[in-house]
Amino acid sequence: MGAEQPETIATIVAAHRAGTVTPAQTVARSYQRIRDHRDPAVFISLRNEADAIAEAEKLAAREDAASLPLYGVPVAVKDNIDAQGFATTAACPAFAYTPTHDSTLVARLRAAGAIVIGKTNLDQFATGLVGVRSPYGIPRNSIREDLIPGGSSSGSATAVGAGLVPLSLGTDTAGSGRVPAMLNNIVGLKPSLGMISTAGVVPACRTLDCVSVFALTVDDAALALSVMAAPDQADPFSRDRPLQPLTPFPANLRLGTPRNGQLIFFGDKKAEAAYGEALQRWTALGATLVEFDLEPFYETARLLYEGPWVAERYLVIRNLLASAPDAIHPVTREITAAGARLTAAETFSALYRLQGLRKVAERTFANLDALVLPTAPTVYSTAQVLANPVELNSRLGTYTNFVNLLDLCGLALPASMRADGIPFGITLLAPAGRDAFLASIGRVFHVDTKLSLGAKGVAQAPLAPLPASTGDEIPIAVVGAHLSGMALNGELTALNGRLIEATKTAPDYKLYALQTTPPKPGMLRVEAGKGAAIELEIWSLSASAFGKFVNAIPAPLSIGTVRLADGRSVKGFIVEPEVLADARDITAYGGWRAYMAERATA
Amino acid sequence: MGAEQPETIATIVAAHRAGTVTPAQTVARSYQRIRDHRDPAVFISLRNEADAIAEAEKLAAREDAASLPLYGVPVAVKDNIDAQGFATTAACPAFAYTPTHDSTLVARLRAAGAIVIGKTNLDQFATGLVGVRSPYGIPRNSIREDLIPGGSSSGSATAVGAGLVPLSLGTDTAGSGRVPAMLNNIVGLKPSLGMISTAGVVPACRTLDCVSVFALTVDDAALALSVMAAPDQADPFSRDRPLQPLTPFPANLRLGTPRNGQLIFFGDKKAEAAYGEALQRWTALGATLVEFDLEPFYETARLLYEGPWVAERYLVIRNLLASAPDAIHPVTREITAAGARLTAAETFSALYRLQGLRKVAERTFANLDALVLPTAPTVYSTAQVLANPVELNSRLGTYTNFVNLLDLCGLALPASMRADGIPFGITLLAPAGRDAFLASIGRVFHVDTKLSLGAKGVAQAPLAPLPASTGDEIPIAVVGAHLSGMALNGELTALNGRLIEATKTAPDYKLYALQTTPPKPGMLRVEAGKGAAIELEIWSLSASAFGKFVNAIPAPLSIGTVRLADGRSVKGFIVEPEVLADARDITAYGGWRAYMAERATA
Repeated sequence: MGAEQPETIATIVAAHRAGTVTPAQTVARSYQRIRDHRDPAVFISLRNEADAIAEAEKLAAREDAASLPLYGVPVAVKDNIDAQGFATTAACPAFAYTPTHDSTLVARLRAAGAIVIGKTNLDQFATGLVGVRSPYGIPRNSIREDLIPGGSSSGSATAVGAGLVPLSLGTDTAGSGRVPAMLNNIVGLKPSLGMISTAGVVPACRTLDCVSVFALTVDDAALALSVMAAPDQADPFSRDRPLQPLTPFPANLRLGTPRNGQLIFFGDKKAEAAYGEALQRWTALGATLVEFDLEPFYETARLLYEGPWVAERYLVIRNLLASAPDAIHPVTREITAAGARLTAAETFSALYRLQGLRKVAERTFANLDALVLPTAPTVYSTAQVLANPVELNSRLGTYTNFVNLLDLCGLALPASMRADGIPFGITLLAPAGRDAFLASIGRVFHVDTKLSLGAKGVAQAPLAPLPASTGDEIPIAVVGAHLSGMALNGELTALNGRLIEATKTAPDYKLYALQTTPPKPGMLRVEAGKGAAIELEIWSLSASAFGKFVNAIPAPLSIGTVRLADGRSVKGFIVEPEVLADARDITAYGGWRAYMAERATA
Repeated sequence: MGAEQPETIATIVAAHRAGTVTPAQTVARSYQRIRDHRDPAVFISLRNEADAIAEAEKLAAREDAASLPLYGVPVAVKDNIDAQGFATTAACPAFAYTPTHDSTLVARLRAAGAIVIGKTNLDQFATGLVGVRSPYGIPRNSIREDLIPGGSSSGSATAVGAGLVPLSLGTDTAGSGRVPAMLNNIVGLKPSLGMISTAGVVPACRTLDCVSVFALTVDDAALALSVMAAPDQADPFSRDRPLQPLTPFPANLRLGTPRNGQLIFFGDKKAEAAYGEALQRWTALGATLVEFDLEPFYETARLLYEGPWVAERYLVIRNLLASAPDAIHPVTREITAAGARLTAAETFSALYRLQGLRKVAERTFANLDALVLPTAPTVYSTAQVLANPVELNSRLGTYTNFVNLLDLCGLALPASMRADGIPFGITLLAPAGRDAFLASIGRVFHVDTKLSLGAKGVAQAPLAPLPASTGDEIPIAVVGAHLSGMALNGELTALNGRLIEATKTAPDYKLYALQTTPPKPGMLRVEAGKGAAIELEIWSLSASAFGKFVNAIPAPLSIGTVRLADGRSVKGFIVEPEVLADARDITAYGGWRAYMAERATA
């Protein structure tokens, strides 16, 4: 394969739109790579190639094809997710069934132009983080053959790592969408609970399950998530949480790192060093690292393993456990059968404790934008895990097990390639709903690593420019006392405002010094070109915070539409003209900061 | 007692502030009434009178006394809520303990000037809706002695009904704060879950419990709630949900009533007729009645009784069940012991079903402002309940059992006094967080009934004027295309905006017709008194909706501060002056509606 070939979703869709590559060619290339890869353990079922190519050709003939966000993108689907035309096995032949229709999320992917080419292997019933608990074999780790592929989404992660497809779906209850991402040097996006419908997904723990995305880049993963995120009446756990637009890297990013002595690497010095280097990269990017107490998060993780949630796994397969226990993988059977013995009282006790831990997590995040942790503390070979299947599996979940219990969203990112050829990764974590924020900072980090993508040496492209914001975050232009460091700036930061950029207005404004305490300017629009370009900052607020902010602004200031120097418009401060008779015209200063600086020295 | 004596919290606090009655006199009156009432089953423990009077005198000597919202209000506390100086029994002597400090909510009441005078009787461990399951006797129903008092908050409800105190606290897991309110012709406010901290409250079902308020009027109950509502780190189920300001009765109120045939009265024709009359009252007040499907709510109620939540009750007393089962009321023991046999798998199954039912409820409320239901389907005598303790108890919860499982807030209101002297009541229900809305409409209904308050013939006063809004709801003045019935009004209703009032600006504005599609006016502030009073409507939006609304307003319009004719200020539309050179001055019309009407006929 030449380096010029499109490998990411972004470049594949662009090539299809430009007509330089056809969807049929892309699909055929996936099949060729699957054959070349020679690993029968990646896919549990693979679609007939001719059918897939026929679908690609039909897609390309559609008039609206170029408008589809995933136009002609081959996708691999974890085999606990229903896709019409395939059996759903959950890696247990005795459990298999043939769905009569797509899961909601697969239907959304297909509607967006994706082409499903097969169903991938997994730790049976998505129970495991290792990828070795399947009667369909152990997918080869795409980076180093001796290592486990990671699980439970083993086939999906190795398929993207090996370049077989640019997009695959996993599921993630306790880390199944993150651990294998690290082990294959790819991006693993675990969205907020409920963001992607789980209707048509075999449950693991229904109250904790979510569908996850594997891709080579953060932007690719975010695009796929934006297609799939939608409320769904067929899934009572679904929530209305569309992906917000990505935003520029913030000026005042605060990332949480565990207190001294709390990190666990199980003796893996290379992983420990790699984590330190990743933190240095964040610092170099401008982030402030803030220590937090990881212990309540560890306690949450123990609650998952020792608590009642395994009863949810038991509910999924209790019929099979009763009728054909030998049909279940012995490790999975042992783990799951324990779920039958737990009581309602134990369940509520654990829910109470979890509620307390959620409050601790809330308080942790009050002071932080996100946590940055190792994705997994270390890595094991397949031989090691087969010899010690439960304990080593458990270790791999050190930094992932607590996440869904605390209703966090997560983004697993490649961080470095160790000297021993083992990939190391970090995971960003934030409260549910902040998926776009994690992607916004994660994409900058990942590009900064200059790592090649996956296992096949695909080079990273420069970051794509961000589209204009259209989501829940509302940008607001401030020109006076709300500027960074000035008297009322705290009103913005108290509302979790973020500085997006510093720029100027179009040359259509006059600026006046008002007789207020604290001193404030008033900006008035005049005939186009007859004013000056006034310096301003654009901050971003949630709709609710924006509403409160606007509501608190006293007369004679109001919030209208401000024209920027580059032609954009943004909401921002303007003044009612009635008060300006007594106000000094300070337009010539070009901005409030310059005027105040001179005033201070005058 | 003369009719001039202050009986409500509002009149008692006003009298204390005015100095016409002292807090000590009010406290002494409570004790005198308790003696006159001659019912030893109301209070489990009563404070020494001299101590309470001394506290009242000390309070009155404080400089800030008059600023306290509950200045000198005697309050009775259900005996499953900790109050320092009293044992907490939960109506089970073997369970009793002496708390070392107040529950958070009692501390908040005391800080607001309330004086705790005693701890009230209850169905043991708050298990029951009848008020007859206590070793401390059966409090007399304050309206008709043969009837049960209702429970579990039996002592608190009868204390307010009989005029012993103007305020008492209950708890409400499945109706314990609503059923006894109806049975004593008083208001029972069951707040949203988490609004009042339950730290220092003996749990019933911790995931469902909340503290409730009994008072003679809705305004009294709302005032007490506003004092108690606050987040509390000591209660992990606590949420940050301050009571929003009450608002005027809305113009477009939509109330849900069950579909034909779904109501259950167990043959009580008088209750059925009383419910019908209550609905007629709502219609006369301007509400639109909309039928909804009650069956999913009934199913939720069955889930409570047949599902795993009784395991929560078991957790509270499992030690006592093991060590001294005979110390527990036999009915309570039988119910609670069943909680030990439930499994984790059953628990998760029920949680899944509940999640589905919550979604159904969400969809129901998408089309409605609130449900209006009977508080209880019928009423029983003490003799009847003692003869059939479980089944009749269960019937009383027909319209209350599902409420906390669905995370609704509720307000039980007196609706009428039946010809047989039995009080009938209705309950308003809405999604969590809408407590202030329920109070806002409930206060109007209750006053409209002209019922006397409680059991002692206290007459209702006219509704107090509402204070200006200061909460999360943001009022916005619209002067043009957003007025009711005009081109862009749908933007407000789509954001769940509510019309609050129609009024005029101060005479400080000019109005211009802009060259826009659809046609819009621009309002400009000029020198005070040099313009006209322009007609406008004030709508109310949530902060988030307000933010989105402001963000969508195109230039040259902006949102600033509009002065009203009565001196208030409100956020509203103003125009940037730069565009007005070409605009027609339509100030003389006095408003957009008059201008557009003439335009249509021209």
